[in-house]
Amino acid sequence: MNVLPPNLSEARFRQALGELGAIVGRAQVLEAVDILAGYADPFAPGPQQQRFMTSAVVLPASVDEIREILRVARAYQLPLWPVSTGRNFAYGGAAPRLSGSVVVDLKRMNRVLEINESLAYALVEPGVTYFDLYAYLREHGLKLWIDPAAAGWGSVTGNALERGFGYTPYGDHAAMQCGMEVVLANGDVVRTGMGGIEIGTTWQLYKPGFGPSYDPMFMQSNFGIVTKLGIALMPRPAAYLLAQARFSHESDLETIVEILRPFKLDETIRGHAVIEGAVRFAASIGPRTQWYEGSGPMPEAAIAAMIKRLGIGHWNLRFGLYGASEVIEAQYAIVQRAFSRVRGAEIEARRYAGDAEPVAGGDRNMAGIPTMSAFRMLDWRGGSGAHVDFSPICPFTGRDAMRQYLVAKTRMTEYGFDYYGGFTAGTRYLHHIVATIFNRDDAQQTDAASDLLRVLISDARAAGYGEYRVHLAYMDFVAAQYDFNNGALLRLSETIKDALDPDGILAPGKSGIWPRAWRSYRGYT
Amino acid sequence: MNVLPPNLSEARFRQALGELGAIVGRAQVLEAVDILAGYADPFAPGPQQQRFMTSAVVLPASVDEIREILRVARAYQLPLWPVSTGRNFAYGGAAPRLSGSVVVDLKRMNRVLEINESLAYALVEPGVTYFDLYAYLREHGLKLWIDPAAAGWGSVTGNALERGFGYTPYGDHAAMQCGMEVVLANGDVVRTGMGGIEIGTTWQLYKPGFGPSYDPMFMQSNFGIVTKLGIALMPRPAAYLLAQARFSHESDLETIVEILRPFKLDETIRGHAVIEGAVRFAASIGPRTQWYEGSGPMPEAAIAAMIKRLGIGHWNLRFGLYGASEVIEAQYAIVQRAFSRVRGAEIEARRYAGDAEPVAGGDRNMAGIPTMSAFRMLDWRGGSGAHVDFSPICPFTGRDAMRQYLVAKTRMTEYGFDYYGGFTAGTRYLHHIVATIFNRDDAQQTDAASDLLRVLISDARAAGYGEYRVHLAYMDFVAAQYDFNNGALLRLSETIKDALDPDGILAPGKSGIWPRAWRSYRGYT
Repeated sequence: MNVLPPNLSEARFRQALGELGAIVGRAQVLEAVDILAGYADPFAPGPQQQRFMTSAVVLPASVDEIREILRVARAYQLPLWPVSTGRNFAYGGAAPRLSGSVVVDLKRMNRVLEINESLAYALVEPGVTYFDLYAYLREHGLKLWIDPAAAGWGSVTGNALERGFGYTPYGDHAAMQCGMEVVLANGDVVRTGMGGIEIGTTWQLYKPGFGPSYDPMFMQSNFGIVTKLGIALMPRPAAYLLAQARFSHESDLETIVEILRPFKLDETIRGHAVIEGAVRFAASIGPRTQWYEGSGPMPEAAIAAMIKRLGIGHWNLRFGLYGASEVIEAQYAIVQRAFSRVRGAEIEARRYAGDAEPVAGGDRNMAGIPTMSAFRMLDWRGGSGAHVDFSPICPFTGRDAMRQYLVAKTRMTEYGFDYYGGFTAGTRYLHHIVATIFNRDDAQQTDAASDLLRVLISDARAAGYGEYRVHLAYMDFVAAQYDFNNGALLRLSETIKDALDPDGILAPGKSGIWPRAWRSYRGYT
Repeated sequence: MNVLPPNLSEARFRQALGELGAIVGRAQVLEAVDILAGYADPFAPGPQQQRFMTSAVVLPASVDEIREILRVARAYQLPLWPVSTGRNFAYGGAAPRLSGSVVVDLKRMNRVLEINESLAYALVEPGVTYFDLYAYLREHGLKLWIDPAAAGWGSVTGNALERGFGYTPYGDHAAMQCGMEVVLANGDVVRTGMGGIEIGTTWQLYKPGFGPSYDPMFMQSNFGIVTKLGIALMPRPAAYLLAQARFSHESDLETIVEILRPFKLDETIRGHAVIEGAVRFAASIGPRTQWYEGSGPMPEAAIAAMIKRLGIGHWNLRFGLYGASEVIEAQYAIVQRAFSRVRGAEIEARRYAGDAEPVAGGDRNMAGIPTMSAFRMLDWRGGSGAHVDFSPICPFTGRDAMRQYLVAKTRMTEYGFDYYGGFTAGTRYLHHIVATIFNRDDAQQTDAASDLLRVLISDARAAGYGEYRVHLAYMDFVAAQYDFNNGALLRLSETIKDALDPDGILAPGKSGIWPRAWRSYRGYT
């Protein structure tokens, strides 16, 4: 027996599904247990049971069908959980925050609606993946790059809405978004920014529009269903250079960050440079057993031996330079000089013509080519590999990076995990991404991962850091950390939520925002 | 006798002012006719009379005082019009959309709250002007640049909130904003983004925060009073190069734009390059009478003669390159080569060390130094010079730029004005700014300017273009142009407005957004 929406009897629920089937076609309403299991989060930390389970899935094919689905949902007060393609792995996948919600899977809406080569943008539907968009550009011979997220199967729309990021100068996906179409809970269809101009010319060119601007309000949000999204694409550069630097000492992190910051601030390095820890690098190559057979965290000696054997650094910096050869060579000379001053550092670069494609997985992402190599990490601990991510924002200073690293490492060791992490460089902040890799077949390890995440988030908050994104299981916990003036930010969100969605049908609990009708569910998992 | 709020008797109004005086001190409530005249818009197009007149001014000194003012305003349903310093010239200055509103002037709240040199940002109160912030940086010997708006007396906060722009790589002021404190109509104090973390570390470093993000919703908006604003500052570059190119032919505009676009897209040129028409260049030097004594628009022959005498171009491109000498020289060589291919083009550059300051006004703005030279243009037509701006967003293509230019020029000639305009380069759009310069002492010219603006806005809309910002007199007109799905965007704004400000006290009519209580005033000026 499937889980039901908490507020509906089975009879009422069946009646609602019948109405949904009449809208999208019976075949586009999914109820089979094994299919619904595919919408559960395969990486969920802690006990599974009935947490984050969908009661059914509905797959609309158009904006009109979405509007009709919303009409039914309002009539039944049926909670919906919209996903673009549901690949939000490590943060919940396709699973809903409130068990019993009906997943609205938008993957059938997968048209590339527009590509403009000279103005370098795309307008896509939510079902378009990085692989799809990349293939489209290649097929049409367009000299444009995408910036893929770590896993190429993800939705361009979904990733931008969750504020995911990649590796090229267009790596900040939320910032690169320009123009949205959103269906509100009441069925009203809004186009943001210049999209307000019907038959206009600048929807994907100028984001703010006239008056208040709303795009970021629909990110990590439950205020509407985004049905079209504009995304900037990078003109294929004349040339590019991918650099890799290895640093020998754990304590080098501080220096690396301090050297890197001015280059990000003055845009010598425009791409999203990444500082990877040794375990993260090693996990992209193979499982842990070849380095260590024990069950707890790898001892320092084993890590040191692994680093030596792999010829990698304790910290590994990767960055790309993109543009005219003479400019990027001048930039590289400056950057190389700066990092070479670090004792024991080695730096090297591979040079490519703009139309050349690297072979190695990591380099491919930095050249705008989607891959699936990110998931190799799942084999690190063996068994049914899963991971859940701790993702605090770190000020772009060596001291803060070192502090976040040491606290995380200490806690991870305490809970039996290796520090698997890295820092991706924004301009004034670092995305510190720490993955707790665990074997889902091991109940003890799964529980420990769950507990560890909570502790890591608490530690971060105590030091003045906050998460940028979090798994379903911790959304209320993190939202409560944004506590200035007794939670004024969440109060604002819920005021807007109630105004836009008085029936509380859209994604109750997303980002800790509960509509009035479901507010008593806060904190409950 | 001053104008009154339309919903209050004089007795009630006096009572409300009494309460406001008790909060801020009697001396900080201004009612004298001559002082209130200073809050009127000196550049208002069309008939003056009682349009856009304030009933009184209140000057709070703190967030607590603002909260108290809001309490009184809610009790009396007193409409307020908050301004940072009220220098929003060409778009209304300090004047309120709804006559009789009480201006809340935040100029006394003028503290620089924080500067971080290594992370390169400032946190300021709304009363801090570009001159103030520049002086602060110099006094403290900080190696940071500001990006001033055209007029240095403007508020850093106010300009960012109105989405103004400057000339350096930090020229997009709204994009450079990071973190706000906002007082909502109900008195609740919200900090956006990472500011939700009390005693946090990343409020001015990472804009989105966790969950929906609201900063752009408080821009060109009447949803709250912004009391603190974070703004990114540019680390002083090692060197910079200011280039100027002259183009001989009117039709060169198309080519200039096409050559410039790839350089903006690939960030060879990171600054806000500007393409200025001949009249705009000439008006920055002296009044029109030296070139033409007639009363209507300057004939082509007079413009041609002026261009020749001044040694300027029909179009004049200015841009800066900022960074390490070897990088900017490589970049300049590429750019120079490209523009030199245009027949008759001349391009030259002035080179500066990072700590050197240019002497000429235009160059100073491009080097992050605030000036007041922008107002020289007011003398162009003589008399009491005023201007009101037509500010459509233009797609970054030569064809669109040429179309916008020709339509504007034709209409301006028809209404008796010179085409005074230019294009400031974003990445995928151009800010086309056209100033209608008129002599306020000349009623016929003032009326013509008023009519012309409406026609220009209509013409633009018919071709699929929309305004990014507009004078009070046209806010409803422009908001109505954003008509997709029967005005869904404005419907969304007014739904949020009513949820956040049910009493309708904050800036009724701003950007065409009217709270429920004042909705019948839409379109009324």
